[in-house]
Amino acid sequence: MATLQDLGVSAFINIVGAFVFLLLFAFLRVQPVNDRVYFPKLYLSGKRRHLPQGQGSAVRRFVNLDLCTYFRFLSWVPSALRMSQPDLIHHAGLDSAVYLRIYTLGLKIFLPIMILALLVLIPVNVSGGTLLNLRKEVVFSDIDKLSISNVSPGSNRFFIHLLMAYVFTFWTCFMLYKEYINVAFMRLHFLASQKRCADQFTVIVRNIPHVSSHSTSETVDEFFRRNHPDHYLGQQAVYNANRYAKLVKQKERLQNWLDYYQLKFERHPEKRPFGRTGCLGFCGREVDQIDYYRARISELDKKIASERQRVLNDPKAVMPVAFVTFDSRWGAAVCAQTQQSKNPTQWLTDWAPEPRDVYWQNLAIPFFSLSIRKFLISAAVFALVFFYMIPIAFVQSLANLEGIEKVAPFLRPVIEVKVVKYFLQGFLPGLALKIFLYILPTVLLIMSKVEGYVSLSSLERRAASKYYYFMLVNVFLGSIIAGTAFEQLYAFFHQPPTQIPRTIGVAIPMKATFFMTYIMVDGWAGIANEILRVKPLVIYHLKNMFIVKTERDREKAMDPGSIGLAENLPSLQLYFLLGLVYAVVTPILLPFIIIFFALAFLVYRHQIINVYNQEYESAAAFWPQVHSRIIASLLISHVTLFGLMSTMKAAYSTPLLVFLPLLTLWFHKYCKSRFEPAFRKYPLEEAMEKDSMERASEPSLNLKSYLANAYLHPIFHMFEQQQQEEEEEEKVEVRVDKAQLQREEVDEEEAHVNTSSQATHYQYHHHEQQMTTTTHYQYHQHDHMSQYHVRPTDTDSPSPSPPHFAYHYGIEP
Amino acid sequence: MATLQDLGVSAFINIVGAFVFLLLFAFLRVQPVNDRVYFPKLYLSGKRRHLPQGQGSAVRRFVNLDLCTYFRFLSWVPSALRMSQPDLIHHAGLDSAVYLRIYTLGLKIFLPIMILALLVLIPVNVSGGTLLNLRKEVVFSDIDKLSISNVSPGSNRFFIHLLMAYVFTFWTCFMLYKEYINVAFMRLHFLASQKRCADQFTVIVRNIPHVSSHSTSETVDEFFRRNHPDHYLGQQAVYNANRYAKLVKQKERLQNWLDYYQLKFERHPEKRPFGRTGCLGFCGREVDQIDYYRARISELDKKIASERQRVLNDPKAVMPVAFVTFDSRWGAAVCAQTQQSKNPTQWLTDWAPEPRDVYWQNLAIPFFSLSIRKFLISAAVFALVFFYMIPIAFVQSLANLEGIEKVAPFLRPVIEVKVVKYFLQGFLPGLALKIFLYILPTVLLIMSKVEGYVSLSSLERRAASKYYYFMLVNVFLGSIIAGTAFEQLYAFFHQPPTQIPRTIGVAIPMKATFFMTYIMVDGWAGIANEILRVKPLVIYHLKNMFIVKTERDREKAMDPGSIGLAENLPSLQLYFLLGLVYAVVTPILLPFIIIFFALAFLVYRHQIINVYNQEYESAAAFWPQVHSRIIASLLISHVTLFGLMSTMKAAYSTPLLVFLPLLTLWFHKYCKSRFEPAFRKYPLEEAMEKDSMERASEPSLNLKSYLANAYLHPIFHMFEQQQQEEEEEEKVEVRVDKAQLQREEVDEEEAHVNTSSQATHYQYHHHEQQMTTTTHYQYHQHDHMSQYHVRPTDTDSPSPSPPHFAYHYGIEP
Repeated sequence: MATLQDLGVSAFINIVGAFVFLLLFAFLRVQPVNDRVYFPKLYLSGKRRHLPQGQGSAVRRFVNLDLCTYFRFLSWVPSALRMSQPDLIHHAGLDSAVYLRIYTLGLKIFLPIMILALLVLIPVNVSGGTLLNLRKEVVFSDIDKLSISNVSPGSNRFFIHLLMAYVFTFWTCFMLYKEYINVAFMRLHFLASQKRCADQFTVIVRNIPHVSSHSTSETVDEFFRRNHPDHYLGQQAVYNANRYAKLVKQKERLQNWLDYYQLKFERHPEKRPFGRTGCLGFCGREVDQIDYYRARISELDKKIASERQRVLNDPKAVMPVAFVTFDSRWGAAVCAQTQQSKNPTQWLTDWAPEPRDVYWQNLAIPFFSLSIRKFLISAAVFALVFFYMIPIAFVQSLANLEGIEKVAPFLRPVIEVKVVKYFLQGFLPGLALKIFLYILPTVLLIMSKVEGYVSLSSLERRAASKYYYFMLVNVFLGSIIAGTAFEQLYAFFHQPPTQIPRTIGVAIPMKATFFMTYIMVDGWAGIANEILRVKPLVIYHLKNMFIVKTERDREKAMDPGSIGLAENLPSLQLYFLLGLVYAVVTPILLPFIIIFFALAFLVYRHQIINVYNQEYESAAAFWPQVHSRIIASLLISHVTLFGLMSTMKAAYSTPLLVFLPLLTLWFHKYCKSRFEPAFRKYPLEEAMEKDSMERASEPSLNLKSYLANAYLHPIFHMFEQQQQEEEEEEKVEVRVDKAQLQREEVDEEEAHVNTSSQATHYQYHHHEQQMTTTTHYQYHQHDHMSQYHVRPTDTDSPSPSPPHFAYHYGIEP
Repeated sequence: MATLQDLGVSAFINIVGAFVFLLLFAFLRVQPVNDRVYFPKLYLSGKRRHLPQGQGSAVRRFVNLDLCTYFRFLSWVPSALRMSQPDLIHHAGLDSAVYLRIYTLGLKIFLPIMILALLVLIPVNVSGGTLLNLRKEVVFSDIDKLSISNVSPGSNRFFIHLLMAYVFTFWTCFMLYKEYINVAFMRLHFLASQKRCADQFTVIVRNIPHVSSHSTSETVDEFFRRNHPDHYLGQQAVYNANRYAKLVKQKERLQNWLDYYQLKFERHPEKRPFGRTGCLGFCGREVDQIDYYRARISELDKKIASERQRVLNDPKAVMPVAFVTFDSRWGAAVCAQTQQSKNPTQWLTDWAPEPRDVYWQNLAIPFFSLSIRKFLISAAVFALVFFYMIPIAFVQSLANLEGIEKVAPFLRPVIEVKVVKYFLQGFLPGLALKIFLYILPTVLLIMSKVEGYVSLSSLERRAASKYYYFMLVNVFLGSIIAGTAFEQLYAFFHQPPTQIPRTIGVAIPMKATFFMTYIMVDGWAGIANEILRVKPLVIYHLKNMFIVKTERDREKAMDPGSIGLAENLPSLQLYFLLGLVYAVVTPILLPFIIIFFALAFLVYRHQIINVYNQEYESAAAFWPQVHSRIIASLLISHVTLFGLMSTMKAAYSTPLLVFLPLLTLWFHKYCKSRFEPAFRKYPLEEAMEKDSMERASEPSLNLKSYLANAYLHPIFHMFEQQQQEEEEEEKVEVRVDKAQLQREEVDEEEAHVNTSSQATHYQYHHHEQQMTTTTHYQYHQHDHMSQYHVRPTDTDSPSPSPPHFAYHYGIEP
């Protein structure tokens, strides 16, 4: 058990650490050279542009010499708070705004609880005085004095704790209820006030049966013409272009290398870059790298062209999935919510996700396979949560020094050096675990992908819930009960069920200091790290050094990232769990949580405004999950309190405590039926209202042309680009200016830089069909096939250019 | 442990008992006087009528003198089997036909399992020889020799049992899958080939919000005109007539007494029946019973009339529920399956149950109250299942001899008589339990009613599932682990979870003989009792003796009953559980189960054809429940086998067995998503098909008039009757014929008997608006407000006369 002093030291270190991070951030963010690291969102939304050439000296464009800005190093805080909620929703989407509400919910729940707990429970605990009497000398420096352990067993003071458990539960439920009303209203209001967009009229149809002598499109057409005669408008086929996408990605990688070598050659024109083709440049024959990569790229180009032909002409490339559009929101709502076919495994309809939210790869999974996948993945998640230590221990046992010496005897002299040996011995065993924990979110996301969800938002939500189980078992339970999750599982099976809450309950107060330290390290310092953005900062400058030649490259090198619900939701939920469990037991933990919530709220508000790019808009579809996890935390807190009380000879507590979880469960059921449909379904009343309003305001709207290309498979855009690109290639080459090739000067506004080889990579694409009066900058960055960092600048436009592999760069005419 | 001889004796007794019952049945059923007890269904469906007057002698009409029929005492078996499935569906509805398929499913699952088990497992067990060596003298007469207990621990023979567990599970799943396909197809086919009926076009809307200055009907009209403009046809309000129904019921009871006394007076005209008005005729003032009851009835008539006025005129009597009709099945399907309102707790839509399936009382329950009711009832069911022994033990402790002597000292001399004392001591403690078990199904049905389900079919299904939990815990687990359910619950909480399957697994083979006896007593004898119909037989003859005066009274006295899903489904599921659990452990139990299934199949087929009256048609909506209960039985059998194996030192079995429940669970999930929508939803494809076929065949159909009265609240029919009744009263009196008042001769075909007082009770009601060419006999019997023993004779007719409290008697013109 740590003493108050220990905790104070730990808190001091962490606070200083966080403070240093914040200072560093304050220093770095005002340097113009880091502008694209700390304000990418402003660039994306067009609120900030790079400085025009010639303004200020060269130094001034990299380093901030205005000393005043350094003194106002906390200026980001008020500016982060200044934006109003409607503006925030407009700027970053409803998802982000509601995500921030989780932090305020945390504050709303825990601030009154903390005040009450500090005023009532701490005096009760301190004057309880068991520990005080038993071991006087140790105890005075112990935070146990402030916890429930200080109350002597069998004392009547436990009634106060019971009462507080009821008060805290009711308060939490009350705040949850109010927040659910709020969020549901925000969602409905958001959907109602949303401008016309394609997903309001579109339904995704999966598992289209194969009818012989009919193409998929014909089958779909016929089916919907028959069963939705009044509202059916059209449909869009989905192509299996996974192989094509792979080739394009490969080409892109080669292109990066080519760029790198060309830049190298330009800086030192005296020597051509040579290198070996084999692994890591160590083996293989030596070639001129520029020629080599050019040859490989042109080879790939041919492959890509033939694959394109195959996709377009092969009927097998059309998948049994389609996006079906209707002439009204009402018609789409009806189709999405009803069963279409006599065979319930065919013609599965659901609301189409936003075009940028679609996860195309999963669209082709058949129904039967889906049920197997779900089953296998849930088994895998169970195994991962409870048995993840087994493979890691195995790897650890392999990756010891003797093993390495055996495999690579030539390393022996190096390893035998004492310093190296100690370092490795201390480092290797932890390495496997560190790597595992680092890649865990990615693994969970891949698992969710295998499960077959068709939208990025649902993928993230599923990954988040898997991560939550992992954290609950391995962080929460794992810290309370020593030993691996597997050992816990074994113990749970071989202990009476009533023993489990006792075991946990007894350990809970003893682990309070551990969790305080955890909150400081993971919470406080983690948040400060989040705002400093070390990884994007380093990568941006590395890319800037080696690849970036034009302003467009710089745009590409900038990585705004996103909120990362898959990781952040579970850790937030863990903080709620800690707060609720410790509220009655060791209330001194609450201030740490409140500081975390307040700090995280500020940081994430700043990041959402200035940094993160919204990948999709799910209209707060994650809220029911947040709500039910907090309910689960309440239930866990009741069970642990139950276990703790039963060891405290407080027999009267059993009947009094049993109602708490029952009432909480009932509250949850009520909320679920009262609010959840607002997040899962779309009421016909709403649909009809919007339809008739639209019909009144725009009677001559041609919906068919509006919807025509909304869900066009990304591959078609690629095809279009390819054609356009080939046309552009000739035009652009005229404008190539040798003088602009100097890397330091390329960041002017309209650098139409291109060499003939680069022309295959950058595509100029001017959207002439846009319906709005102003011309827009559209920037689509591609990171991975599953992630579109896309922000359509105008949702009113038909968004004719999905982002897949597309680097559109609107040129001001 | 019972020996084989013991078991043989028990089997012999039960077989003889069942045989005697069957013989009695064979004797009684050929007596014409019992015709209405054993063939009520044939009377109801018009296939059999009472003998016309004058045919045969008076004796012949009561006793069967044809000796040949006595020799053909098993003739009911082939005649029960003769009816083909489509005929059966036509005769008794799809529910009955699918219910019978549960028995054939049992045979299909267990016959091959039994053959395999007897051929493979019995030899393996017998030659296993642990018990054989250990206690040679006892064991030879023991059925344990045939069970898995006979195999020595750690033997490799357990591999065979494991293999068999896999084979049995796969076979069961395979049969379940085939059966689900079959039943789902039958359901879809039934729905598709069904004639036009009102519930296909009707949606029930609950929780209609109150809009000030609008009546409920106006609100509904406006809402659906706005949100379903193309398909909305009309709506029918629902009235709160529960108090009116109570008064009518009261009047009916008085009427019965009046009839009784009038009959008494007619037989002995020399003395008027006098009696006291107080409780049970013991106290109160002495009155002329005929005058007294007449006065009370006329008093009630006034009350009924004023209540009728109140319901019709008070706007508060209109409940926030409505039946909304659409002009097509498509429109209704859309409305039933979608969310209507922004507030998901308002405007809840669902398919309307059949008119005769509606449980009117529950229509008015608001949403918030529903969620509380469900919560409270699930807590109550839990308490009932686990703590039901507590109140019974309390009652038992009160109802001992000393207690009675204290309360009623004057009984002391009687009680002190030795014979009486022994009898009471043996009898009283069991009485409370017996009464409890007898009323349990009724209690569970009432609980389901409190939960707020709006159709009789769902009420029965819910009651069935509650009863199943009770049986599972108190019959299955209660027999295996000695002690009350409460003690089990306590043990479960204080034992490690792995200990529970071990406890059960070890006890399982030892309890085989008990369950064999249980199957014989509850199954075989119970089935024989079912076909004998002792209770309806007695009640019918009692009523015949005291109340029946006319042929219509006799119709009323006849109680066809119904299948009684609420009781029969759970006990059937228990047999599946026993069969699956013992298939590997003690396969000698299987023949008992198979005899039960075969016998029960025959008996229920006979009863369904000849006796039971179909109360409603849910188109086999109970099948998903049957399926998942059998899956649950499989899982329980795996867990018990797991526990058993772990005590048998068969360590290798753990990893091998763990896949079985996982695979079974996956199979269940797959079946659920594959088939269950067919039982919950109505595909639009189907709806559209039927709509367009109907439009093609009957283009001039006036659907509005067809649907106008389908869901008219029963109270309106009562009002209509009352008016008609008052008109009829005058006409009918003319036809009163004193000669026909002789009770023995009233059973002629068209006995239009009535006295002026009876005219208030019998109503002649000629349906002139029926659309078919033949005139139909419609007979509506009222039993309880919740049960309409109604069989519309022609589903094609608009069924203008819901049965509530209506005694329509169609007269052949």
